[in-house]
Amino acid sequence: MNPRALVFDAYGTLFDVHSVAQRCESFWPGAGARLSQLWRAKQLEWTWHRSLMRRYAPFSQVTHEALGYACAALSLPLDEDRSAKLMQEYRGLAVYPDVRAAHAGLRGAGYRLAILTNGSHDMIDPLVAQSELAFDAVLSVDEVRVFKPAPEVYALAAKRLGVAAGEIGFVSSNCWDALGAKSFGFRVWWINRAGAPLDRLDFEPDGILSGLGELSAVLAR
Amino acid sequence: MNPRALVFDAYGTLFDVHSVAQRCESFWPGAGARLSQLWRAKQLEWTWHRSLMRRYAPFSQVTHEALGYACAALSLPLDEDRSAKLMQEYRGLAVYPDVRAAHAGLRGAGYRLAILTNGSHDMIDPLVAQSELAFDAVLSVDEVRVFKPAPEVYALAAKRLGVAAGEIGFVSSNCWDALGAKSFGFRVWWINRAGAPLDRLDFEPDGILSGLGELSAVLAR
Repeated sequence: MNPRALVFDAYGTLFDVHSVAQRCESFWPGAGARLSQLWRAKQLEWTWHRSLMRRYAPFSQVTHEALGYACAALSLPLDEDRSAKLMQEYRGLAVYPDVRAAHAGLRGAGYRLAILTNGSHDMIDPLVAQSELAFDAVLSVDEVRVFKPAPEVYALAAKRLGVAAGEIGFVSSNCWDALGAKSFGFRVWWINRAGAPLDRLDFEPDGILSGLGELSAVLAR
Repeated sequence: MNPRALVFDAYGTLFDVHSVAQRCESFWPGAGARLSQLWRAKQLEWTWHRSLMRRYAPFSQVTHEALGYACAALSLPLDEDRSAKLMQEYRGLAVYPDVRAAHAGLRGAGYRLAILTNGSHDMIDPLVAQSELAFDAVLSVDEVRVFKPAPEVYALAAKRLGVAAGEIGFVSSNCWDALGAKSFGFRVWWINRAGAPLDRLDFEPDGILSGLGELSAVLAR
């Protein structure tokens, strides 16, 4: 049975968070990749910590604070100008090479397409706009004030799209996000571009794809 | 005002989780440190993911699964014998060099001492027993089926010790654990042995110490 809506994760799935590394490198030669990795790692950790502590803050704040931490940890001097420029990079992240054709194909096939993201609207809306990818809905966890992989997040998508959980196809490159969605009841494809092992969280995705380009063929079966 | 009870985190605070690296190195020369780091990272991530997904599993299971993941990710062949031996290492972790004298001093000063840990009793009880450190209580999140830094965990300590949150002194080397405890209402000392920046989670510890040896002096003030 074909899903009635396809819901995509944004950061790491459609948009390459590490495309900020180049700007990082231009500011601190030799440290760009390390900074980008630590920035992303802390950003994610703090979404989990804040959710468990019940101290939600918008993703833009968490991302900004994670940048400050990462620079401090790596002894990279960060001033307001560089901080603002790097936060702006996050609003213009590169689209993965396999995204545009896949998006066009799925849209052409008549699927309802949505984004379900940790990103607050101040971050995700400009990013989606500049990407020129069209979605029927861009849903942010900001509405439920808890981050992925809490079930409230996936419930938001089902509710806002008016589609039963089992009729939503969910697509994420973040394995824990894919498995959180599966635990909630979505049909799930994990985009495993890096060839990583599966996370061990009691669930398995319905399919594991090496890129978004394979999605159309899988859905057509 | 002196705390009525002192509550310690176990893994990373009293016990050095990376003391497993030596055994890892003996099994896979050249990969011991990397394996130990990835094993610990995944172990922690999955405590957060499972808690948010509401799919709790005991820490012994999570630790075992994280070992399997880490070996797979690093292409290190893991058989049942090595797996059992490494899990056994976790029941005999080294005590940090600053622990014994600090523990003896605080006990001599008459403090009630407890452990509050992610560890399930099948892991933590043998570890504490072999360390020969005496505690008035060893409390496991297993009782509330959610991991740190959820407030239910810290509430368990207050309830089981019969001490108000504000009269508990909490000690952890894991900054997010310290701040989760602070968010709940404990007095908190973060043991920052590595000189890391402070996590940015809306709270600050009451004190930042470079080792457990400083705790007695701080409490005597």
